[in-house]
Amino acid sequence: MDIVGRDAVADDCAIFPSGKGFMVASTDMVHASTDFPEGMSDWEAGWMSVAVTLSDIAAMGATPSAILLAVGLDDPSRLRPILEGAKVCCDNYGTRFAGGDLDFHRELTIVSSGWGYSDAPVRRSGARVGDLVGIIGIPGRAQAALEGHLEYRDFLFTPKPRITEGHMLAKAGVTSMMDVSDGLLMSLHDMLEVNNCGYELFSSRIPTINGLSQEESLKYALNGGGDFGILFTSPPEILPLPLPDLYIIGTVIGEKVVNVDGEVASIQGYQHHWD
Amino acid sequence: MDIVGRDAVADDCAIFPSGKGFMVASTDMVHASTDFPEGMSDWEAGWMSVAVTLSDIAAMGATPSAILLAVGLDDPSRLRPILEGAKVCCDNYGTRFAGGDLDFHRELTIVSSGWGYSDAPVRRSGARVGDLVGIIGIPGRAQAALEGHLEYRDFLFTPKPRITEGHMLAKAGVTSMMDVSDGLLMSLHDMLEVNNCGYELFSSRIPTINGLSQEESLKYALNGGGDFGILFTSPPEILPLPLPDLYIIGTVIGEKVVNVDGEVASIQGYQHHWD
Repeated sequence: MDIVGRDAVADDCAIFPSGKGFMVASTDMVHASTDFPEGMSDWEAGWMSVAVTLSDIAAMGATPSAILLAVGLDDPSRLRPILEGAKVCCDNYGTRFAGGDLDFHRELTIVSSGWGYSDAPVRRSGARVGDLVGIIGIPGRAQAALEGHLEYRDFLFTPKPRITEGHMLAKAGVTSMMDVSDGLLMSLHDMLEVNNCGYELFSSRIPTINGLSQEESLKYALNGGGDFGILFTSPPEILPLPLPDLYIIGTVIGEKVVNVDGEVASIQGYQHHWD
Repeated sequence: MDIVGRDAVADDCAIFPSGKGFMVASTDMVHASTDFPEGMSDWEAGWMSVAVTLSDIAAMGATPSAILLAVGLDDPSRLRPILEGAKVCCDNYGTRFAGGDLDFHRELTIVSSGWGYSDAPVRRSGARVGDLVGIIGIPGRAQAALEGHLEYRDFLFTPKPRITEGHMLAKAGVTSMMDVSDGLLMSLHDMLEVNNCGYELFSSRIPTINGLSQEESLKYALNGGGDFGILFTSPPEILPLPLPDLYIIGTVIGEKVVNVDGEVASIQGYQHHWD
């Protein structure tokens, strides 16, 4: 399907010329049955609905400007905590919460739309053979929480968009970025589609989650959902960068494939998107 | 509730300074059970989901720039006609269709978010006693279609956002505008909340819908849903304007009330919004 245009949907945000730079914009739908884990409060659902869009803006290296929310409520009493969580998330990242639309819906459904600005947004494409593959944030902690490791609850319920880190990576000159929301493998396959190269991960370089085995950590990192890390490729010469929570986990290779320790890593159920 | 700020949600769009003028932005949720009338095709649902947001932008007198769509699909085969309808609607109004988010949902749910630009957006507030009340488009035709008058089907299924008309009204110097989506009375009550004045409609000035009685026309105009007209207030001295389909239907009065022919017109079930 090519109604929107392949290039237009190849990134975490759509990109528009604006003044001397660019505006980037994204919209994300979350709803009760698939996106809100058991035990998530309405305040947290409000936070998360904003964080998913801010994370898309972060992954372009842009500074967020404003968020609009469309809320489909199954119960009117849920509105206040949802809006409060959304507002606090916006405030935390210097973003204006600018209202939106209110509706009633059988299933709680929240769509956040937001935009931001950047002089030079970083895209998913741009990786070059010989670049290193990096990640901001130990991957897999949201999935660990989902599997019962409740000490990682915050990573699942109030995920932090990596605005500052995205901005600093862009300034430093990384060659491509995207946010990780469905595990490293899914994200790397998304990047594979828009780059003429492949990715090799080294399992020994993927950080172990405190209190979990290396095997479990690796499983959650590769295929777990809910992380809000930023995956990027970087020329080796600009590293190391003065950013906490940054891990180099692989390299960009010539063959158009995603490898882990030299073996092709495919994804069950991987689907192409709506472009 | 005052989380967003009352002023921020007092208009069809949120307003942001941008360059020497303003950016306006809106988001709207539509879903199968409440917004898509029986017999509406998926192509039409796609068109309508975009048209509701473009109509909000039109009602500020702004020129639309781009639309993002979040689509929650109950059936993947519906995606293509929805996106095609959305794309054609965008194309018809010089708006870039910039992609969005795709999700699966028990109930088909579409959220469009869009923005545009204006040197001087017209707000819902600004009406002055002595202004005339006008409407673009014969009101009530969408409701007439819903009641079985199928010759008005297009007004319900492929509503036309009044971009050009909104722009021309703003240029001409109207004092306030909003788009009408739930009948004249609901819209005037919304305007009442943000103005220090009231509105007097004259039923004899509300145009009769071709083929319907005056009584039926009036009923649909006052309380019928689905219209995409622009309601506005205007100083008498700038009228008439060279716009087709423009009707002067009332005046702005000092008393903070909505009257029809001198009688107070209240609305059953009228609810305040999420500000």
